[in-house]
Amino acid sequence: MKILEYMQLALSLAEKGRGSVNPNPMVGAVVVKDEKIIGTGYHRYFGGPHAEVYALDEAGSDAQGATIYVTLEPCSHYGKTPPCAEKIIAMGIKKCIVASLDPNPLVAGRGIEMMQDAGIEVETGILKDKADKLNEIFMKYITTKKPFLFLKCAITLDGKIATKTGSSKWITNAIARKRVQELRHNLMGIMIGANTLVADNPSLTARINGGIDPFRIVIDPDMVTPLDSKFVSATDGKSILITSVEQKPFTQKYLEKGVKVILLQGREFSLEDILTEVGKLKIDSIMLEGGSHLISKAFTEDAIDGGEIFIAPKILGDREAIPFIDGFNIHNISDGIELKNTKFNIYGDNISVEFYKN
Amino acid sequence: MKILEYMQLALSLAEKGRGSVNPNPMVGAVVVKDEKIIGTGYHRYFGGPHAEVYALDEAGSDAQGATIYVTLEPCSHYGKTPPCAEKIIAMGIKKCIVASLDPNPLVAGRGIEMMQDAGIEVETGILKDKADKLNEIFMKYITTKKPFLFLKCAITLDGKIATKTGSSKWITNAIARKRVQELRHNLMGIMIGANTLVADNPSLTARINGGIDPFRIVIDPDMVTPLDSKFVSATDGKSILITSVEQKPFTQKYLEKGVKVILLQGREFSLEDILTEVGKLKIDSIMLEGGSHLISKAFTEDAIDGGEIFIAPKILGDREAIPFIDGFNIHNISDGIELKNTKFNIYGDNISVEFYKN
Repeated sequence: MKILEYMQLALSLAEKGRGSVNPNPMVGAVVVKDEKIIGTGYHRYFGGPHAEVYALDEAGSDAQGATIYVTLEPCSHYGKTPPCAEKIIAMGIKKCIVASLDPNPLVAGRGIEMMQDAGIEVETGILKDKADKLNEIFMKYITTKKPFLFLKCAITLDGKIATKTGSSKWITNAIARKRVQELRHNLMGIMIGANTLVADNPSLTARINGGIDPFRIVIDPDMVTPLDSKFVSATDGKSILITSVEQKPFTQKYLEKGVKVILLQGREFSLEDILTEVGKLKIDSIMLEGGSHLISKAFTEDAIDGGEIFIAPKILGDREAIPFIDGFNIHNISDGIELKNTKFNIYGDNISVEFYKN
Repeated sequence: MKILEYMQLALSLAEKGRGSVNPNPMVGAVVVKDEKIIGTGYHRYFGGPHAEVYALDEAGSDAQGATIYVTLEPCSHYGKTPPCAEKIIAMGIKKCIVASLDPNPLVAGRGIEMMQDAGIEVETGILKDKADKLNEIFMKYITTKKPFLFLKCAITLDGKIATKTGSSKWITNAIARKRVQELRHNLMGIMIGANTLVADNPSLTARINGGIDPFRIVIDPDMVTPLDSKFVSATDGKSILITSVEQKPFTQKYLEKGVKVILLQGREFSLEDILTEVGKLKIDSIMLEGGSHLISKAFTEDAIDGGEIFIAPKILGDREAIPFIDGFNIHNISDGIELKNTKFNIYGDNISVEFYKN
């Protein structure tokens, strides 16, 4: 096997931690000696051992003189675990090959320096683009302290998310809806507008095997969220209500039920402010599920980092049906919003457009 | 090779005639003797020799005792060419394997009968579904005398075909637009509303190598089509204006320019009436290119036999932009239009949904 293949294996291992390690990065590691893989590992869950620990422990004393492939620069600081760079040195690793450098200011470059000072040969940048993409959520969060905002919406061919009466079940098919459950596991938070909550009373959970439920964030400047909604009734402490400071006198009964309340100025909150506040709760990623008003605002502010728009081969053909986006004033086609870095996914007779700002 | 493989080859040959043989069917033929292919052919252009003629002539005297695979029942009547069933008999073919039976009442079953009477063993129905699908245009036209109506439209992700000012160039990318040129070759006619003509002054030609320009059909109850439009100026006799009988006094100047004029009662023409009149001109297929009003009417009447809707990853987000379909009144998602027999095609960063009524 070649360097690229070992690193690709490490990346595939890292990917297994998706949705379970946030707000930490996904990391994979492979220890190789004499062309043989003698240890593998990945960061499995938030606060758990790092990828290097699994891989080095598996290699044991054979790690002496071996090469370690790591998708992200080994850490150099005492966090929830002792620094991996120290362990790599202690185990007698001869060479360390790294994909991404750590964007975390606590770590950046220091892990590499520690290893080099100990006489380990370090090579960096191998499959860096792939590794950076893998951890785009972590990269954004650690550098901006704001969560990665991922749009999910399910639309008809004519771009509607519901009929004029609010009927939206179901636009997409079961395969596409299963993918949405995966996304809810992959991303730490899920955000909807109060109108959507009132209309659908959604449970906003990740209904897949071993799925981690997201933090539920509801934007509700007018405090219309019903006290008997599933959102308020949830007992896992993951419900977050964002409302106006003007509503402060009315927050008590939500707080009593265990809902976290964030107060913002005014009534039209900017995504900028919302993301800043949510970021403070150590939530590194949010899936924006709608409705129309919130999605439109997010596009207007260019606050969307990526998304997946699911399209069903259905047509409403009704001008009064609810569009997934509205409120723009466009004269020329070239002035429209152009989604970038697109990719299509086929789910039976449904399809999705996945896109990313970067 | 097996029976199915020979017939598949015959179908692939038939496909080569797409767009060139209308309103005749596409047909392919393969002559096989001692497991060797000794002749192949397909119907190349309208009025030209049939597939069997090419294949049998290539086989020559070796056809004696051979098997012929034909995608459509050989003809038994004197049309533009002598009957193929006779030629098959005369050449000494021993066995004839047929996919589709001919839906043409002038031929149905008689070709097979003629061959059987002459002692040829005949097997039918091999890959019949594929062969029927291949000639769905011919099948519809020959049995109903109405053209196959194929919708083409290019929309943004939010289902718009133009901005409110009429800007629509370009929603889709160059790869998707090239596919549209192919469709214009494949289908005999192209139909648009007068508003689209006035807004875009399109040339409506098949701009591909060897492409056959379609008949251009404009629905114009109010006779707003400019005399200096490309549509009126075309000198190929393929421009057809459909207007109201009330406009009869004003048709002269269009007729003088070589435009065919069809007069219909009233001002809101039904697709049913339009297709009936266009069918009389031996046009077996029409691509419906828009605009919104005509497309909506076609869906309302359930007149669309199939289509390809191209989607670009662009968003207008403007309620006043022009939707590809409008005028329905839908309360429940399940009451929307559901496209059937869908298939997705990817054109770079554009995608299309292809669909068929049957």
